[in-house]
Amino acid sequence: VSRSSDLVFDFSRAERIGFAEAVLCEGKSPRQLIDVVNLVSARSSCILMTRLDPTIYGALPDNVKSFIDFDAESRTGIVGTVPSLSTARRIAIVAAGTSDFSVVRETERTLNVNGHEATRIVDVGVAGLWRLMQRLDEIRDHQVVIAVAGMDAALPTVLGGLIASPIISVPTSTGYGAAEAGRTALNAMLASCTSGLSVVNIDNGFGAACAALRILRLLDNVIASSR
Amino acid sequence: VSRSSDLVFDFSRAERIGFAEAVLCEGKSPRQLIDVVNLVSARSSCILMTRLDPTIYGALPDNVKSFIDFDAESRTGIVGTVPSLSTARRIAIVAAGTSDFSVVRETERTLNVNGHEATRIVDVGVAGLWRLMQRLDEIRDHQVVIAVAGMDAALPTVLGGLIASPIISVPTSTGYGAAEAGRTALNAMLASCTSGLSVVNIDNGFGAACAALRILRLLDNVIASSR
Amino acid sequence: VSRSSDLVFDFSRAERIGFAEAVLCEGKSPRQLIDVVNLVSARSSCILMTRLDPTIYGALPDNVKSFIDFDAESRTGIVGTVPSLSTARRIAIVAAGTSDFSVVRETERTLNVNGHEATRIVDVGVAGLWRLMQRLDEIRDHQVVIAVAGMDAALPTVLGGLIASPIISVPTSTGYGAAEAGRTALNAMLASCTSGLSVVNIDNGFGAACAALRILRLLDNVIASSR
Amino acid sequence: VSRSSDLVFDFSRAERIGFAEAVLCEGKSPRQLIDVVNLVSARSSCILMTRLDPTIYGALPDNVKSFIDFDAESRTGIVGTVPSLSTARRIAIVAAGTSDFSVVRETERTLNVNGHEATRIVDVGVAGLWRLMQRLDEIRDHQVVIAVAGMDAALPTVLGGLIASPIISVPTSTGYGAAEAGRTALNAMLASCTSGLSVVNIDNGFGAACAALRILRLLDNVIASSR
Amino acid sequence: VSRSSDLVFDFSRAERIGFAEAVLCEGKSPRQLIDVVNLVSARSSCILMTRLDPTIYGALPDNVKSFIDFDAESRTGIVGTVPSLSTARRIAIVAAGTSDFSVVRETERTLNVNGHEATRIVDVGVAGLWRLMQRLDEIRDHQVVIAVAGMDAALPTVLGGLIASPIISVPTSTGYGAAEAGRTALNAMLASCTSGLSVVNIDNGFGAACAALRILRLLDNVIASSR
Amino acid sequence: VSRSSDLVFDFSRAERIGFAEAVLCEGKSPRQLIDVVNLVSARSSCILMTRLDPTIYGALPDNVKSFIDFDAESRTGIVGTVPSLSTARRIAIVAAGTSDFSVVRETERTLNVNGHEATRIVDVGVAGLWRLMQRLDEIRDHQVVIAVAGMDAALPTVLGGLIASPIISVPTSTGYGAAEAGRTALNAMLASCTSGLSVVNIDNGFGAACAALRILRLLDNVIASSR
Amino acid sequence: VSRSSDLVFDFSRAERIGFAEAVLCEGKSPRQLIDVVNLVSARSSCILMTRLDPTIYGALPDNVKSFIDFDAESRTGIVGTVPSLSTARRIAIVAAGTSDFSVVRETERTLNVNGHEATRIVDVGVAGLWRLMQRLDEIRDHQVVIAVAGMDAALPTVLGGLIASPIISVPTSTGYGAAEAGRTALNAMLASCTSGLSVVNIDNGFGAACAALRILRLLDNVIASSR
Amino acid sequence: VSRSSDLVFDFSRAERIGFAEAVLCEGKSPRQLIDVVNLVSARSSCILMTRLDPTIYGALPDNVKSFIDFDAESRTGIVGTVPSLSTARRIAIVAAGTSDFSVVRETERTLNVNGHEATRIVDVGVAGLWRLMQRLDEIRDHQVVIAVAGMDAALPTVLGGLIASPIISVPTSTGYGAAEAGRTALNAMLASCTSGLSVVNIDNGFGAACAALRILRLLDNVIASSR
Repeated sequence: VSRSSDLVFDFSRAERIGFAEAVLCEGKSPRQLIDVVNLVSARSSCILMTRLDPTIYGALPDNVKSFIDFDAESRTGIVGTVPSLSTARRIAIVAAGTSDFSVVRETERTLNVNGHEATRIVDVGVAGLWRLMQRLDEIRDHQVVIAVAGMDAALPTVLGGLIASPIISVPTSTGYGAAEAGRTALNAMLASCTSGLSVVNIDNGFGAACAALRILRLLDNVIASSR
Repeated sequence: VSRSSDLVFDFSRAERIGFAEAVLCEGKSPRQLIDVVNLVSARSSCILMTRLDPTIYGALPDNVKSFIDFDAESRTGIVGTVPSLSTARRIAIVAAGTSDFSVVRETERTLNVNGHEATRIVDVGVAGLWRLMQRLDEIRDHQVVIAVAGMDAALPTVLGGLIASPIISVPTSTGYGAAEAGRTALNAMLASCTSGLSVVNIDNGFGAACAALRILRLLDNVIASSR
Repeated sequence: VSRSSDLVFDFSRAERIGFAEAVLCEGKSPRQLIDVVNLVSARSSCILMTRLDPTIYGALPDNVKSFIDFDAESRTGIVGTVPSLSTARRIAIVAAGTSDFSVVRETERTLNVNGHEATRIVDVGVAGLWRLMQRLDEIRDHQVVIAVAGMDAALPTVLGGLIASPIISVPTSTGYGAAEAGRTALNAMLASCTSGLSVVNIDNGFGAACAALRILRLLDNVIASSR
Repeated sequence: VSRSSDLVFDFSRAERIGFAEAVLCEGKSPRQLIDVVNLVSARSSCILMTRLDPTIYGALPDNVKSFIDFDAESRTGIVGTVPSLSTARRIAIVAAGTSDFSVVRETERTLNVNGHEATRIVDVGVAGLWRLMQRLDEIRDHQVVIAVAGMDAALPTVLGGLIASPIISVPTSTGYGAAEAGRTALNAMLASCTSGLSVVNIDNGFGAACAALRILRLLDNVIASSR
Repeated sequence: VSRSSDLVFDFSRAERIGFAEAVLCEGKSPRQLIDVVNLVSARSSCILMTRLDPTIYGALPDNVKSFIDFDAESRTGIVGTVPSLSTARRIAIVAAGTSDFSVVRETERTLNVNGHEATRIVDVGVAGLWRLMQRLDEIRDHQVVIAVAGMDAALPTVLGGLIASPIISVPTSTGYGAAEAGRTALNAMLASCTSGLSVVNIDNGFGAACAALRILRLLDNVIASSR
Repeated sequence: VSRSSDLVFDFSRAERIGFAEAVLCEGKSPRQLIDVVNLVSARSSCILMTRLDPTIYGALPDNVKSFIDFDAESRTGIVGTVPSLSTARRIAIVAAGTSDFSVVRETERTLNVNGHEATRIVDVGVAGLWRLMQRLDEIRDHQVVIAVAGMDAALPTVLGGLIASPIISVPTSTGYGAAEAGRTALNAMLASCTSGLSVVNIDNGFGAACAALRILRLLDNVIASSR
Repeated sequence: VSRSSDLVFDFSRAERIGFAEAVLCEGKSPRQLIDVVNLVSARSSCILMTRLDPTIYGALPDNVKSFIDFDAESRTGIVGTVPSLSTARRIAIVAAGTSDFSVVRETERTLNVNGHEATRIVDVGVAGLWRLMQRLDEIRDHQVVIAVAGMDAALPTVLGGLIASPIISVPTSTGYGAAEAGRTALNAMLASCTSGLSVVNIDNGFGAACAALRILRLLDNVIASSR
Repeated sequence: VSRSSDLVFDFSRAERIGFAEAVLCEGKSPRQLIDVVNLVSARSSCILMTRLDPTIYGALPDNVKSFIDFDAESRTGIVGTVPSLSTARRIAIVAAGTSDFSVVRETERTLNVNGHEATRIVDVGVAGLWRLMQRLDEIRDHQVVIAVAGMDAALPTVLGGLIASPIISVPTSTGYGAAEAGRTALNAMLASCTSGLSVVNIDNGFGAACAALRILRLLDNVIASSR
């Protein structure tokens, strides 16, 4: 356990629940973010920073920024050394529209920092059904599917009726008016006619990736012990 | 203009905006409903009573009930003589689930009272996509489509991307929890990725039928004047 | 089917459901917008960009901007060659106040990109009833009416009781406090005492135009086949 | 000041703020209601009981019921002697539909118990505009107008643009779905484009009457002192 | 009737319903605002501009600004010549806190443009009850009271139990969290235990003033005709 | 630790956090309630049953009912022997209206089961300010005040500005429409202009009593250790 | 594909997405339920009926009831022959309180009908932390955990920080006031500080079980193919 | 009583209800803030300014700023001389995450201005339960605990089951999507399974400190009088 300026890190999380520490940067002061980076960069572990505003990132001191692998589209930073990525195609991220791209990228980066690649299948919303249909076999090739959609969020309902994999649905805040900043997509996923969808918070690509990682770790353990 | 116990009827509505008077029965006292029936049955016109609770209907005096053609599933009553129905298949009512049946029937009865039959295509929700697909050609054969769906209301999004007709969407209050008594279906329809859906109030089969009637009347007028 | 940097275009949409591809720009990164323009400008088709923020438009590279016919008031851009506009006055856009003007313009631009002119009748809210009354005959001259109103949205209720045409209602986010960013107008339209209004999302002039286009296309097909 | 079983009456309210004590019966136990009646019936004053459920009224002891002038449609009871009613037509209650009748009656009963008659003008909703228009002169003959409407509540917006009197608007819980149990009517009145409407709680005919009584008392005082 | 660039003015409003034209500036483009000023300044009448953002005002051309009497705290502009103010103290504006000051000023400016002064009694919220108590006699000296309060909005409840005048309550958007941008104050006023309060929209000082003007005009007419 | 049919009791709670076990009965099946009573009645401890519906209580077997001291107004039952009540007047329950009585009683019963009496001061809402004022000295005589109010919930705001004691506020679901089933009272208390009010859930007299008990226990401990 | 009175069954669902057909009974008429039972009982497959109200079940004809294995606490019915249950303890259902029992049972019955037993661990809410702690090892012995909790729903947050398995969280509608009929529990689970929780609709034990079944099926497939 | 430009100060508040005047700066104009500082700095008392935006503070005149002890993280200013701080550790501020730090600081500053130090225990959210557990004895050493948490706000539920002290819970607006700007944390605290938590407004560290001060003052009085 390390403690610095009120920060309490949980570096043993990887062993305990299967993935590394992550820091929600929204609401943290620059001073707190600098503490985070300094603390982590002095160790061998690796953490993910989520919802790191590009403007706030830009204003950090250069020596701090040099420790951060920053991605503006997903507003994520990685501090420390990322493990080498598995090459097996185990997780597909399927998204309804290109406006959902930042959430797709946050999901992907979270998987990467935990050692997994992902297959991105974007702009296959069911308002143009043929777009999803022509990639269905490709999707079925993966163990776990993360479905990202905003507005009416009809994608996971259709997809869940066509494939048998675990599907983790991520509503996005895309849209306006009755889209209610993602609440309509969230509610539509929760109230879906398709059975067995599970859902995470609006725009929470990070959380969806973690839910997928819990399943992958279970798979690995089961296979290991079944040998 | 007729007036009785504070009631003001609008018998000229048919000429003015294309469909006959209708009475929302919810919130009206038995005394008011009896006034409605007495007033209308003394005339040659025909009206529709909507949201007429079976218990309240059952408690009306027998001589009043005898003037009402009552349908319990849709909670509608018809007073007066319905015009003979056109045999042309112009309107399809497409519904996601059998739980939406009462709304389907309210839509159908409203069309009937205005002289139109409708084709019912029920239980074709997109969680089992093949159910919609095998009836798509049949749906395309109609001029106007009324799409009825609750919960995630993904049906009109998929349907609207596949057919070019005017589509009037009716959200239903089917479901629980995040279905929010139909508000999720309503919002999902309004925020749909499919362009050009139009929407009516939750469970408002009557309103959807009236919107369709406005289009059919326009069609009839245009054809009449194009001859 | 074309695909570039995760974009999947639907250029066959016009044939399938009656109007051309459109792109919701809100939430897309500049890189994605540039991809859109490049992909489309290399073809003969024409697309509409909606909710394109003037600041984001302004920051695009000049060679990209040169392909866009941009309108700041409606925040729309048109890429490609617009078809010549029909001169027939088929659609009236009736708006309650001048604050609804940007939505009126988005509606108009969507109709234009699909080959239709529209008649604008603005600032005829029913708080000053004579303003609507003196233009009623002019409105009745059109096949389809799009009614745009914010705040209490009383306009379509009054209008719908006076004319028989299909009326597509667009609530706007005009107003403050109890106007609830357009939700009050939306709900008032959905709960209207006038029968047969249909409604689209808040500020969704684009969607209203598409709903009207579905009706016009049906009209054209019916007339063509009735000859 | 009187106190019985935790009740504290305010019999001097009439002198202080211009109208007599009233008791909201909803949420009170039968024992509390009996205490109310016993306490008041032993005095010369007169009180109004509002939202008195017919079933609860029916279950009161007969000797208690005998002191209550009960009206089921408005769910009001009057205990004590009502003053003789003024014959001047000073207040008009204008309602959009017959479903709003119970609220109209609560308003009327509150005025009665304070010595005023009211003119009822019901079923003049603006979806059939001619109904309001033909009674406009009659409405203008009154000093204060109470406008009662549910669903879209467009009536006070139109009325307020046509007459100069103080208008107190009462939203009603009539309607379903997007009517949101009266919240849409309430918000539409608050966000009305017509200037100078004032609003009371949903279904609060009692409150509207009291607001009118405050104005009438001011008028009486001003006239008295101007002589 | 005048019409310019889609604007339709209602210059006869003063005669019809008792107060002059006003323009809600929020949501209007600079071009529209300039049209408003040009149209009005060419006439003898006088209008009020409400919710005119200081930044937008600042960016108007100087020759347009020269026609506007602008007040930044209330975000109001007056175009044209204000009538001379009556000296009689007829209206008191009573406000709970100094944070409600901008709404107090909007109310006052609206009264001014219609020829009335008002007495401002600010910072008398009932969390420090003695502040209200020591000014109660002063408040009672006025014919109509406008009560302005945010957060819990307890002021009109207490005040309404102490004075008999008509009270128009204005909820303000002061506060955070559970204050819900003024909705809590609005609801608390509507659900007040004090009888006969009437309420306008959140922050709507303009509307409260108009409601007061309707009462004052009635008073003036009654007195005139009682002579 | 005891376990029976999935129930896990916490009989050591009194020592750990200062008050005895309580059971929320709403949502429990009769079978579960019977298990609760049987388990507790076999021991020397005492528990409180809250939100025990009179109908469900009535339908329990007589031998089970005989163990329950049931109070219908507060819907509470006490199983086991209540400790003798302290006679010191330490807690005042101050309520705005008689409709809040059931919550007042739930508070009182919770205090009783933990060995404390309470002083009830009911019907002192600030719409009739003199009612509160004449009992202010009595309220000040108590160490802790529990303020119960519905609708606008102005009582704790006024009271909190007049007394220095800890005040625990309980919003009630009294009222209709904009009272929003107690949410308006809850929000008004949370957003109160008076500093240092603390709040519990709507109608949660039980929780308010527990919060008071935490303070009383602290007092007792401090006094004990200060001797 | 079978079709009877508008019903369209999906008997091949088990092969396609891993679990058998289920019917949401809420909102269906008795006639529709009878059709369901008749259709299924004539086949060898097995279906689950959810949200089947005991009163509606009780009113079905006896010959229909004889085909239904009904469980009142979970409001579920099973028609057809349930497969023999696996004895391996793969799924734990962990619930915060006994009031959540009906949801626990719906989860369990859904698993049963698909051939799985489950371990029930109830009344381990974290307000009494020791209750969860003493059963933690038992929970860790299972492959997938379904966490059921209402009100504040703190259980999955604590649990998710202690175990590495996939956790599917089910919010329940237990509680009152600020519990908001389960929305607070739902939102608290979605906004949990613990990473990788996934969530289903309020009270949706059925959906949670299906999400778990998707994971178990994946496990079985992976193990089978890894041999 | 002092009055300047509509400001009414309450300098006797400390004697009356136990803590000094405080000013909510949000919504006040710079002119009003300058008046506040000038008025206070001319006296010997001391006040707290809350929610003072750093940008607005920065733009105040230098001679005004020189009177303010400003803290940017908590957005608070102190004008006048703070009393010397008691050294006794009586209040613990326990916070779930470092993102809640600004609220922690506002609490601390409010306590300081009233003469109390506080112990800060931050980043002990229950998603990593060991963090709270290892500091539990330290927390138990304090008389009153203020628990600060956002998102799911599970901390006070767990803490309240482990300690007997009065616990004042402060929900924070940390988080996104389903965190609903702090409303989820607020509701979860109000609906907590742990008995006797009391709650203040979202982000209201000031209010929590005041509620604690009411308890400390009661303690001091009781001890003083028990001697």
